[in-house]
Amino acid sequence: MLERTYIEDVTPEDDGDETTIAGHVHELRDLGGILFVIVRDGTGRLQVVAKEDDTPDLFETAEDLDSEDVVQVTGTLEASDQAPGGVELAPTELTVVSEATDVPSIEISKDVDADLSTRLDERHLDVRKPSTKAVFSLRSKAMQAMTDWFYDNRFEEVDTPELSTAGAEGGADLFPVVYYDKEAYLSQSPQLYKQILVASGFDRLFEVGHAFRAEDFGTSRHVSEIAMFDVELGYVEDHHDVMDVQEESLRHTIRHVVEHAQRELDELGSDLSVPEEDFPRITFEEAREILADEYNHVPEDDDDLDTKGERLLGKYFEEQGHPAVFVVGYPNEKFYYRQDVEGDDIASRKFDLLYLGQELSSGGQREHDIERLTAKMREQGVEPENFEFYLDAFRYGVPPHGGYGLGIDRLVQQLAGLDNIKEAILFPRDPDRLEP
Amino acid sequence: MLERTYIEDVTPEDDGDETTIAGHVHELRDLGGILFVIVRDGTGRLQVVAKEDDTPDLFETAEDLDSEDVVQVTGTLEASDQAPGGVELAPTELTVVSEATDVPSIEISKDVDADLSTRLDERHLDVRKPSTKAVFSLRSKAMQAMTDWFYDNRFEEVDTPELSTAGAEGGADLFPVVYYDKEAYLSQSPQLYKQILVASGFDRLFEVGHAFRAEDFGTSRHVSEIAMFDVELGYVEDHHDVMDVQEESLRHTIRHVVEHAQRELDELGSDLSVPEEDFPRITFEEAREILADEYNHVPEDDDDLDTKGERLLGKYFEEQGHPAVFVVGYPNEKFYYRQDVEGDDIASRKFDLLYLGQELSSGGQREHDIERLTAKMREQGVEPENFEFYLDAFRYGVPPHGGYGLGIDRLVQQLAGLDNIKEAILFPRDPDRLEP
Repeated sequence: MLERTYIEDVTPEDDGDETTIAGHVHELRDLGGILFVIVRDGTGRLQVVAKEDDTPDLFETAEDLDSEDVVQVTGTLEASDQAPGGVELAPTELTVVSEATDVPSIEISKDVDADLSTRLDERHLDVRKPSTKAVFSLRSKAMQAMTDWFYDNRFEEVDTPELSTAGAEGGADLFPVVYYDKEAYLSQSPQLYKQILVASGFDRLFEVGHAFRAEDFGTSRHVSEIAMFDVELGYVEDHHDVMDVQEESLRHTIRHVVEHAQRELDELGSDLSVPEEDFPRITFEEAREILADEYNHVPEDDDDLDTKGERLLGKYFEEQGHPAVFVVGYPNEKFYYRQDVEGDDIASRKFDLLYLGQELSSGGQREHDIERLTAKMREQGVEPENFEFYLDAFRYGVPPHGGYGLGIDRLVQQLAGLDNIKEAILFPRDPDRLEP
Repeated sequence: MLERTYIEDVTPEDDGDETTIAGHVHELRDLGGILFVIVRDGTGRLQVVAKEDDTPDLFETAEDLDSEDVVQVTGTLEASDQAPGGVELAPTELTVVSEATDVPSIEISKDVDADLSTRLDERHLDVRKPSTKAVFSLRSKAMQAMTDWFYDNRFEEVDTPELSTAGAEGGADLFPVVYYDKEAYLSQSPQLYKQILVASGFDRLFEVGHAFRAEDFGTSRHVSEIAMFDVELGYVEDHHDVMDVQEESLRHTIRHVVEHAQRELDELGSDLSVPEEDFPRITFEEAREILADEYNHVPEDDDDLDTKGERLLGKYFEEQGHPAVFVVGYPNEKFYYRQDVEGDDIASRKFDLLYLGQELSSGGQREHDIERLTAKMREQGVEPENFEFYLDAFRYGVPPHGGYGLGIDRLVQQLAGLDNIKEAILFPRDPDRLEP
């Protein structure tokens, strides 16, 4: 490996140490006889101060540098109140590792608010911006924390196919694939596979994968290719066991991000607090009442909370110190695999999690009785005959089970405080965007 | 949650303790007045001994049990040399949680060698077999160890799209997708995206995802939907830095499996040793010489080692205490993004890793000079104009970099000692299999 210290490891306490860094030339400032070269690696930026009087040859090389050249610089670290981060490098060696042959069309070192579409078109330049890179470093740390929690809590990771003959939720909004001489579809959800596996003895499982929705949306909350964190567990008493898992794993993830991604949060200007208290669990009816009483807002659809409603609910609970809240008993989620509870006031064991005013996940206890399950399918116009591969698993003992699917992109959007979900995805896909 | 102790946590040292377990009825043996009920959960099996004289009501319930019913059993643990695992449960309570309504068509408790195709058709039953479940518990533990290593070594996890306008390796063998009113393709590899990101300042990254190959194969080593562990890192001196990462992460993963998945390895009869010594790194020419000299085997294609050759090489090095070996300088991998080294005896900086006689990964240092890269593309009949989104990233400083893609399914196949790659995948896809 080329010798280098990660810039985030350099602190004012290293004053006087010799070190070598490597990275892109982020910014150049020529003060006449003194040249400030800000070098950027994947973890931070460091100011290199080249002085004509001290190192004339090096100064000459530095004068020829262009933005985004890759350099390796050795020198002495000097604590300085004027330097960003309180430390800078007095260079003794400077090598150009790779030259930029073009001038970036996006100003990488300036905090100019570029149009999102332009940013995504030129994503390879956009991710060079520290604020964009911070989103994806934060995303990686959040994923690390989340998977850690599940491994530590005896969940097993599974991997199910994205190519199938049918979708979990019927035939709507599927992307068809030419599969040899057959027609296949891209998966909308690993829901059915998760259930088959828990039915068959995988006690607790999770899966990280992509789901595909051929919807023709035009919102800031949807994309066509979605990163999902799916969870399913057996031997539940009811949906509260599932919510417990969702709550604890999310709290752990947020805590990890606050403790280990402060640099990224600062870069993004995101001020995140760990929801230490129990997440409120309110019914769908209670949610509607809060919206009516507090905000005089009645969502148009009787069976739903609309986007505005979710945002207002988020605000309401955030003001009470609760960034996350469960809404239980959504009547609009009529998928056959959700279990109904007879005589239950809330009519169902389904829940949604709202985090900072946005729906992050949907879940619930599942129907595990094959008689009720097939009856429910017929009621909803789904032919059980087309789902034999799924129903087969319910003909042998099935532990009562439940689970949820969490949208990873939405989680990152909320953690990073981003306006649009596409900002949380490296190369997002929507009806108009299939490149880069 | 329903009260339960995981069966793998029950040991003979717990003699005399009261405990509750839950799981499927794996096996029933009626000895007249004494009934042995083997209960199976996701982590193991425990023998429950119901005696008519001691608990007549419970005995009656137990007599009505069927294979694969789900039960919850409370009782006293008793160390016993006769019991499998040295411990059994004397029950005081037995509840049927969920009844099997059908008789399994596959014998779950018998070690009968069923035809692989039948096993995959009835995968929901097949995964109930402890030897099959062990494959996927081992897989989860291997994935945990592998991702841990990368997080611990400052790699960041990225997530790139599986839907695109073009494949990394040109137009061959791609699955077309109807994407709204456009044509898209399923990704064959995240190669180009990985390189774009490292060029743009992601110093070290990894990605876990699916790749799709529309090849019409019929071997025991290929499937159409592949789980890949992709790695890319900047600031390399040469391909040896990439091999170091591959070697250390694989050693860590195997060590974790040996230390934490012994139960699974025992269940599978797989005897795994940790390759503590440096993996040999031989040239392609040396590999051919060994095959000719030691086994009188000359692969038909001058540019390749064939399957038999790989197996023989694996044997050769295993006998010398090396389960893993790098073959450097494969001339047959002519992808434009691999860097050629002028005047270098081995002609290239490409490598393959063979593990226990099977190719697990391909990698190398990449070409990062845009002039040489576009020239190479033209030489190989690839139109640079179609890859502008990729080439754009090379117009600004690019750290020298390299990486590799490891086939997760193949790794699991080798760790578990399986004949066919499909055994290592829960729901494999091939030209004839799109279900379940």
